[in-house]
Amino acid sequence: MHQVAILGVGQTPVREHWDLSIRDLAVNACRAAMEDAGVERVDAIYVGNMTSGELSQQRHLGALVADFLGQWGVEAVKMEAACGSAASAMRMGILAVTSGEMESVLVVGVEKLTESLGSQTTSALATAADADYEVIQGVSFVGLNALVMQRYMHIYGYDRHDFAPFALNAHANGAKNPNALFRAPISQKTFDNGRIVADPISLFDASPIGDGAAALLLVPAAKAPDAVRVIGSASAIDTLAIHDREDPLWLKAAEQSANKAYQQAGIGPDDVDLFELHDAFSIMAALSLEACGFAERGQGVRMGQEGEILPTGRLPIATMGGLKARGHPVGATGLYQLAEATLQLRGQAGEAQIEGAKIAMTQNIGGSGATIVTHILERP
Amino acid sequence: MHQVAILGVGQTPVREHWDLSIRDLAVNACRAAMEDAGVERVDAIYVGNMTSGELSQQRHLGALVADFLGQWGVEAVKMEAACGSAASAMRMGILAVTSGEMESVLVVGVEKLTESLGSQTTSALATAADADYEVIQGVSFVGLNALVMQRYMHIYGYDRHDFAPFALNAHANGAKNPNALFRAPISQKTFDNGRIVADPISLFDASPIGDGAAALLLVPAAKAPDAVRVIGSASAIDTLAIHDREDPLWLKAAEQSANKAYQQAGIGPDDVDLFELHDAFSIMAALSLEACGFAERGQGVRMGQEGEILPTGRLPIATMGGLKARGHPVGATGLYQLAEATLQLRGQAGEAQIEGAKIAMTQNIGGSGATIVTHILERP
Repeated sequence: MHQVAILGVGQTPVREHWDLSIRDLAVNACRAAMEDAGVERVDAIYVGNMTSGELSQQRHLGALVADFLGQWGVEAVKMEAACGSAASAMRMGILAVTSGEMESVLVVGVEKLTESLGSQTTSALATAADADYEVIQGVSFVGLNALVMQRYMHIYGYDRHDFAPFALNAHANGAKNPNALFRAPISQKTFDNGRIVADPISLFDASPIGDGAAALLLVPAAKAPDAVRVIGSASAIDTLAIHDREDPLWLKAAEQSANKAYQQAGIGPDDVDLFELHDAFSIMAALSLEACGFAERGQGVRMGQEGEILPTGRLPIATMGGLKARGHPVGATGLYQLAEATLQLRGQAGEAQIEGAKIAMTQNIGGSGATIVTHILERP
Repeated sequence: MHQVAILGVGQTPVREHWDLSIRDLAVNACRAAMEDAGVERVDAIYVGNMTSGELSQQRHLGALVADFLGQWGVEAVKMEAACGSAASAMRMGILAVTSGEMESVLVVGVEKLTESLGSQTTSALATAADADYEVIQGVSFVGLNALVMQRYMHIYGYDRHDFAPFALNAHANGAKNPNALFRAPISQKTFDNGRIVADPISLFDASPIGDGAAALLLVPAAKAPDAVRVIGSASAIDTLAIHDREDPLWLKAAEQSANKAYQQAGIGPDDVDLFELHDAFSIMAALSLEACGFAERGQGVRMGQEGEILPTGRLPIATMGGLKARGHPVGATGLYQLAEATLQLRGQAGEAQIEGAKIAMTQNIGGSGATIVTHILERP
């Protein structure tokens, strides 16, 4: 089995890109990754995306991206796992390289969400949940997360203001990332005054949609001894509907995929220097910290309150803004996380740099924890 | 690198399944494949599908299928490459097994097309072409294929009746397959009187949509010495829009993926005993035969006229009905082809059995030839 290295990184800023189509976004990120790697021809292109069929009327995205990159003849496919699509494309890239069949693979996550009606986007995003047993009840995706957060507060005795540190940290970090959608820190007062979107989730507990693309160029580690290496990669699913879980406050798929990745990497939670987690909603950040072994049950929020998640803390999270401030172009997010982790390990994270980072973990979540993909990267 | 064997095969009949949702169809095919293989637990599930987001409001199909199969904790993702989605899921299954990471992988193609408005289905299928440069002109997917067929007739001097053998063979073969949608042979007169759908494509030159699912259970060949083996597997893309091709009558991606698969298998076209090709339209069958080296340019139609494609001919095609008579549940089709080829090599094809078949080839096409995936299977 070949180990995998990340030779190239490319991304577009997350914005409302009214002048760029989904193909432009993907091609721009891919070109940047290929240029960064010094590679002109690849063997395969795996594209993570969620909504291209409905919002861009393109349901043949692998061929679309490969074609406009001029990479005719390669294998190219789109992977879809709701908001976990991009890390799932990374998984296929890793399998392709470890199998020995491919020597140079582009993985790209792309999403174009803003050039459509808000109601269209909301219903497209609701397809991450179970249409027949959840959405049919009229619940939106943020509504589902609000129910989980409500229960968490009830069981562990928090109120909604206790979640503020996740938002404050993300926005402070996003201010240092030129590719972030929101580049202004927010105060506790701003958080407290945040409009309620779905009680108890306020505007600042929820990540914003956006357009963007992020890409990595993968090669066998033996061919790039100086590049960041993938030392853990695993994906797991849980029940699609939250109401089918024994414990709606436990992300079992996070626990399973993280444990598998830790085992592959031969490390434990204490060895991780930074964690790009899936803070689509503050509650998901807390649950992710708990399921991955960074905090005890019900203590994820406490890690925020005690400053442990800050760039200077025990486990910096959302170091380039996270989903909240960098933005959440859903099917691209997993590769933004991996691109940012790679830049951190290369020492190329600019003002957002976490000094001395050697091991980074990323976790991309599809739906309300139904698909969870964990990666661990190491500086050479 | 591990070789891959097909230990289990499962499928649902292709029908208008008004009583089964997309999850039921997928789960039924998966259960059948697991039972056939005698396997109760898998490591991963890769789902091929095209339209679940728009037509079933489910954009999290990997988790959906794995969940309802009771396979919590596994990796599960959906692959999308328009009508080439299912063979693309097969590709990921193969990479997962050859990488050594997975020991038991379910690949399933599923599509639920009929429980929606006809206009909805037509526009969902048009997303296989390029929305920005083809569909925007008002052309439908069958319209694009009609343009190609028109040009083929013009260049090589055929008329539309010359294509009849593809339809006659498919319907005669479908009559012998209990899972086929259409189970009645048709006559030359029926073909000749076929209503024109998009000139020169008549009703019998076009495959029907349908609901269905087909699944395979893959394992390392070393663990199943008596099972059918995958000896070639390759995917290639061409330009998404037909008008961007140097020669619109040459399926370059078919040539490239077939040549790669021949090379892996160490065989040539003469060694293939049967070919499950992608006869979504008669013209695609002809072009596929030519690009894969079974006929000279412009002679694909001649193979039909000379009876070479019949069960008794030099190269039997569409042996269980093909897309035309078995039906074309788009994102499931590639795995129906692979399931049928496996049954043929096992000698389990019933009345449709091709005696003595040792090597079978399948080819699944996404869009108008933009994604083409070729597999070669061998009887142990």
